[in-house]
Amino acid sequence: MFESAELGHKIDKQTYKKEVPILREALLDAQLELLQSARFPVIILISGVDGAGKGETVNILNEWMDPRHIRTHALDEPSDEELDRPVMWRYWRVLPPKGKIGILFRSWYSTPINNYLQGPSKNSELDQQLERINRFEKMLADEGALILKFWLHLSKEKQKIRLKTLEKDPKTRWRVTPRDWKNFKIYDRFHSVAESVLRRSSTSEAPWTIIEGSDPRYRYLAVGKAVLQALRARLDTAEIRQPHVTSPPVMPHIDTTSVLKRLDLSLSLGKNKYENELEKYQAKLNLLTRHGNFRNISVVILFEGSDAAGKGGSIRRITGAMDARMYHIIPVAAPTEEERAQPYLWRFWRHMPRHGHLAIFDRSWYGRVLVERIEGYCSQADWMRAYSEINDFEEQLVRHKTVIVKYWLSISKDEQLRRFQEREKTGFKHFKITEDDWRNREKWEQYELAVCDMIDRTSTEIAPWTLVEANDKNYARIKVLKTLCEAIENAL
Amino acid sequence: MFESAELGHKIDKQTYKKEVPILREALLDAQLELLQSARFPVIILISGVDGAGKGETVNILNEWMDPRHIRTHALDEPSDEELDRPVMWRYWRVLPPKGKIGILFRSWYSTPINNYLQGPSKNSELDQQLERINRFEKMLADEGALILKFWLHLSKEKQKIRLKTLEKDPKTRWRVTPRDWKNFKIYDRFHSVAESVLRRSSTSEAPWTIIEGSDPRYRYLAVGKAVLQALRARLDTAEIRQPHVTSPPVMPHIDTTSVLKRLDLSLSLGKNKYENELEKYQAKLNLLTRHGNFRNISVVILFEGSDAAGKGGSIRRITGAMDARMYHIIPVAAPTEEERAQPYLWRFWRHMPRHGHLAIFDRSWYGRVLVERIEGYCSQADWMRAYSEINDFEEQLVRHKTVIVKYWLSISKDEQLRRFQEREKTGFKHFKITEDDWRNREKWEQYELAVCDMIDRTSTEIAPWTLVEANDKNYARIKVLKTLCEAIENAL
Repeated sequence: MFESAELGHKIDKQTYKKEVPILREALLDAQLELLQSARFPVIILISGVDGAGKGETVNILNEWMDPRHIRTHALDEPSDEELDRPVMWRYWRVLPPKGKIGILFRSWYSTPINNYLQGPSKNSELDQQLERINRFEKMLADEGALILKFWLHLSKEKQKIRLKTLEKDPKTRWRVTPRDWKNFKIYDRFHSVAESVLRRSSTSEAPWTIIEGSDPRYRYLAVGKAVLQALRARLDTAEIRQPHVTSPPVMPHIDTTSVLKRLDLSLSLGKNKYENELEKYQAKLNLLTRHGNFRNISVVILFEGSDAAGKGGSIRRITGAMDARMYHIIPVAAPTEEERAQPYLWRFWRHMPRHGHLAIFDRSWYGRVLVERIEGYCSQADWMRAYSEINDFEEQLVRHKTVIVKYWLSISKDEQLRRFQEREKTGFKHFKITEDDWRNREKWEQYELAVCDMIDRTSTEIAPWTLVEANDKNYARIKVLKTLCEAIENAL
Repeated sequence: MFESAELGHKIDKQTYKKEVPILREALLDAQLELLQSARFPVIILISGVDGAGKGETVNILNEWMDPRHIRTHALDEPSDEELDRPVMWRYWRVLPPKGKIGILFRSWYSTPINNYLQGPSKNSELDQQLERINRFEKMLADEGALILKFWLHLSKEKQKIRLKTLEKDPKTRWRVTPRDWKNFKIYDRFHSVAESVLRRSSTSEAPWTIIEGSDPRYRYLAVGKAVLQALRARLDTAEIRQPHVTSPPVMPHIDTTSVLKRLDLSLSLGKNKYENELEKYQAKLNLLTRHGNFRNISVVILFEGSDAAGKGGSIRRITGAMDARMYHIIPVAAPTEEERAQPYLWRFWRHMPRHGHLAIFDRSWYGRVLVERIEGYCSQADWMRAYSEINDFEEQLVRHKTVIVKYWLSISKDEQLRRFQEREKTGFKHFKITEDDWRNREKWEQYELAVCDMIDRTSTEIAPWTLVEANDKNYARIKVLKTLCEAIENAL
């Protein structure tokens, strides 16, 4: 795998001087075109052995292109903020938006390789991490990102010479740390694990390019030309995203039964009973969030439901029981411009709470398989892959000790009509009813099918859906509070 | 995940009687169209809990469609033949060709789930097996296969009732085995692992469809309609396979150095030395293949090289040292009609040797990234993904104690010319030189680049390439024998 990168590739000074101006101009052109079209983001990973010139290569890319539209991130030790979230959160935060270039110096590959070399991880854990990375990169590619992964390589002998040379020169001595020499001692093991990682993560979506690092001119030209070639190839291709037709992921709905139709919407709760229970569960919820172990978990609550199903009222009964510093409510509406320039789940990842905190989503990432599916805001391929992307996402959260509580508030079509009419009559509720609401109502049956598919595909043991009979608001609110308390209690 | 499949779905007799004839006709039509167009194969997996009617469902599909074009495989315990090969070999053998339908009763999911439930596998092994399956299914989908995965589900209570009912009736009593009751006892664990497996293997290429198994009429109609819907969707779509443009997987070739150019083609061996060494290494090879441990490994040897590089001669020097019952030579030419109807690697999987045997490939699966790439016989996307598919393939072989020895025989362009001219002059060698050979020669430089890419992408620690300086036939043959002996010796 490293054969070509141990040949002593070299570019002479004259050739370099002749080629660089041409390459720079072409790179700048391509970068400008990328920026203006804003069709896709470019993610460049610079990894490799110590002393192979990773840092200098990052610098030269910034020098050759317009650095205002490049964001470089050197990801070293994770911060407290980052340790409090699932592993991939820190990478989601630094993804470049469409039209921009993100350069990652040390990437999502560093931690798996280091943990493996330093002992805590075993082979099987490395496998799991690589699988997670492969899925992540596939998602990025499906979302349109151009991913360029460079591995700067030095043979063992060349690495030794390089470290010694750097050490001799007073101007570069600081760059050689004791860690570098320590790493050098395990060169062979490092080489072997790197080989295995590169082999298994060279997917067709995001293959590695291995570049010999010993000669700076060769290294710069090679990386620069590879970036240019990939950028041009992508820019010069018209946007065709016609994915394979695959089998439909939906259950055949051949009879009239469904999980929704089976709900007993006549369930209700009298006023007195309601008030007693409300007090009881709010007190309980309050205690739970003050529990000593609560600092070690986070809670993500999400509400989905037809219009006027009572999401807001339920949320207020939850927040009424808690200290406002502990939670955030995230009302999900149409994505912002910034959010549209990112992969779909980005706008939700950014709101993931730290340990000891709760996030409450009023509508959620499930919009993809509900409204976006029904209204055609995304292609079938996009919402089809969303089911597995969402399951992946929630699994990462659960592994990181996040309690996920998902509510579908279910009301009947008649009850919705009653509430719509009431809202139109009541002054202060008038703003709550729009043309859209009436339009959505016409697609009631389509939505019901989409909800059933959603539940079938994403109600998992680790993150189950709770279906709430919500024709009676009192009953719904108590059921929500009660199941929330149970879920948190189980996790403490 | 199983919510919808525990509702007690039912279809009454009258509806069933009305719907079946319509469904059957539509299924037969679709099947005929599939057969005539022969555009893609259909792979149907029928899995699920005991007693949910898996067998009956397989039978009804055969009854409703034309069974001559369906191949049903019940994969139970692997045979000796199968145990002697990598795990996936038995599934490769039963893949349906384009235009046909293959139904797998018990599939590649059974063994991972059973091994996990019965103890030998741990969580991490299950993960690895699922990853392998996901890659396999992705490859199938990339090759155009339509994959339909059905999970027939019964709630715990329904399963109990079902087993008891079958036991009561003398006609069906035989179908309930002690194993079924043993499995019933671990229903909860089974349910939990099945849920996790289904969730993680519901990819956009090949999602699961969960169907409630308790009412036969519902079950049959649901499976039948889902098959029809998927078949129709695929048949009615024009063949558009325009994959995403991704970054080029090739190294930038910006200087004139390459692993091939670095070979010292002047290396040679005198006649006497050659004959001594030939005797020595052939004797050694013979002893190695008679070694007691040789029964526990298999050996796959492959030769690639320019035309007239001396592949045949090297192969004869190897086989000359061995018992003819131990090896097969597989000359790889254009694929047969049967092979063209299967995924690319199928024609190589079928020749994988049992333990204690050798297979020698004269040209190999690397044709995909050499001649097929250069001549445009497959799309760029196809040869791009071949690198990782091949690495996967070889990794499976190595895990199954297969020694892989890969030779690239390298000669200079001048030496090739000399040999071509010699062949044209020599009567009995005349048949060895064709128009194609002269045509390929014109693309010498393109081939060189493709070879370098191939080595960079697929020379791995577990299956490295051996580059052989082959201008001198004596030198080349000895190098081949010597490295082969070393590789086998290391494995014993």
